[in-house]
Amino acid sequence: MFDMLAFDADDTLWHNETLFVMTQEKFRALLEPYLTREWTGAELYATEIRNLDYFGYGIKGFTLSMIETAIELTDACIPAHEIQSIIDFGKAMVKTPVNLLDHVPEIIPSLAQSHLLMLITKGDLFEQETKIAQSGLVEYFTHIEIVAEKTAAMYRRLLTKHQLDPQRFLMVGNSLRSDILPVVEVGGHAIHVPYQTTWAHEMVSDHVAQQHTYAELAHLGLLPDFIAQFKS
Amino acid sequence: MFDMLAFDADDTLWHNETLFVMTQEKFRALLEPYLTREWTGAELYATEIRNLDYFGYGIKGFTLSMIETAIELTDACIPAHEIQSIIDFGKAMVKTPVNLLDHVPEIIPSLAQSHLLMLITKGDLFEQETKIAQSGLVEYFTHIEIVAEKTAAMYRRLLTKHQLDPQRFLMVGNSLRSDILPVVEVGGHAIHVPYQTTWAHEMVSDHVAQQHTYAELAHLGLLPDFIAQFKS
Repeated sequence: MFDMLAFDADDTLWHNETLFVMTQEKFRALLEPYLTREWTGAELYATEIRNLDYFGYGIKGFTLSMIETAIELTDACIPAHEIQSIIDFGKAMVKTPVNLLDHVPEIIPSLAQSHLLMLITKGDLFEQETKIAQSGLVEYFTHIEIVAEKTAAMYRRLLTKHQLDPQRFLMVGNSLRSDILPVVEVGGHAIHVPYQTTWAHEMVSDHVAQQHTYAELAHLGLLPDFIAQFKS
Repeated sequence: MFDMLAFDADDTLWHNETLFVMTQEKFRALLEPYLTREWTGAELYATEIRNLDYFGYGIKGFTLSMIETAIELTDACIPAHEIQSIIDFGKAMVKTPVNLLDHVPEIIPSLAQSHLLMLITKGDLFEQETKIAQSGLVEYFTHIEIVAEKTAAMYRRLLTKHQLDPQRFLMVGNSLRSDILPVVEVGGHAIHVPYQTTWAHEMVSDHVAQQHTYAELAHLGLLPDFIAQFKS
């Protein structure tokens, strides 16, 4: 049924968003004594989105956005040594060991025995390569693609590049916006496996989601049986 | 003679290092009133190299290293609004239009008529993709590879991936360390076209360079004739 099973990485194979949420909590605590207005969290998100066009995704852009937000929310009163602490938050994020999600260590090697597997991940090349190397999963993937943005056009290019029939291509991921809807749009199959938290930027409205056909599984442990049913 | 002509991008096809040098000059001027010790430039380079392991190559990592250096060289006395200026330097770098080197607009389309061309560039995915798209050269390259580091192992992987015989592979680039020596090491051909300035990190000693065999051309305009002579 499927010539290629493709997987997203962040929040699909390993934890990622929790690291950003935890760091945001440390950032809030650091800022508290210097705040000249109320902290809502919305300012950091607004800065991140505004800066996507300059920095793209990843920890370095997030760190620069934290610094900008700190300067803004304190009316530039934050001392330089606290800004160094923010840079150190970013460095700690980079060095946080990869933490695989439940079921991943069993199902990826198992599926690799019966299918070709591909990793398609979005974000910072340096950070993604570091995590992929650390994950211990490299040997199971025939192709690894790190892309700047996951759009329908990008999936179309990848399918052409690897000479894959969309009808025989399955993508598994946690983000409706990046892993599911654009794949369905180009005629591929997609399975949504939600992560415990979703970054606001990756959310889509129910209205948009309902116009697309895809499956949803509660966790990756259910994937092998789900795929097997297509054979019968 | 050659099945594939591969090109580096930064400082081979378009100007890059000059942008870093110019920004470093703006950074020095900004810091001047706050300096608690003498500015030598060596501190910024030391911070960059120390941070490579955290941030990799590119403008975002460079910007974070400028901020760290500013905090260090001013004993944390630099005001936050000056740190915002440093972030703005980084943003201005990202938005600087791509400026092709001399001869590039003629020789790349011309060589593409007789050879398969490939782009192999190191650095930040987001920044490289932006520059590649802007360059107007995309259509001439059969393959575009953005990698985190250019080592012999990486070139070996690329040659295998594209089923290329190293003996029939030619790499053209400005960095002995990244474009020339590792290619010669895996049995490929390489042409060194020096750029007007070389980042200290990309320099290699004469002793190391002399152990490798490669050609050197003064500018890219000489490349078509150089390649043509291999046919006769």
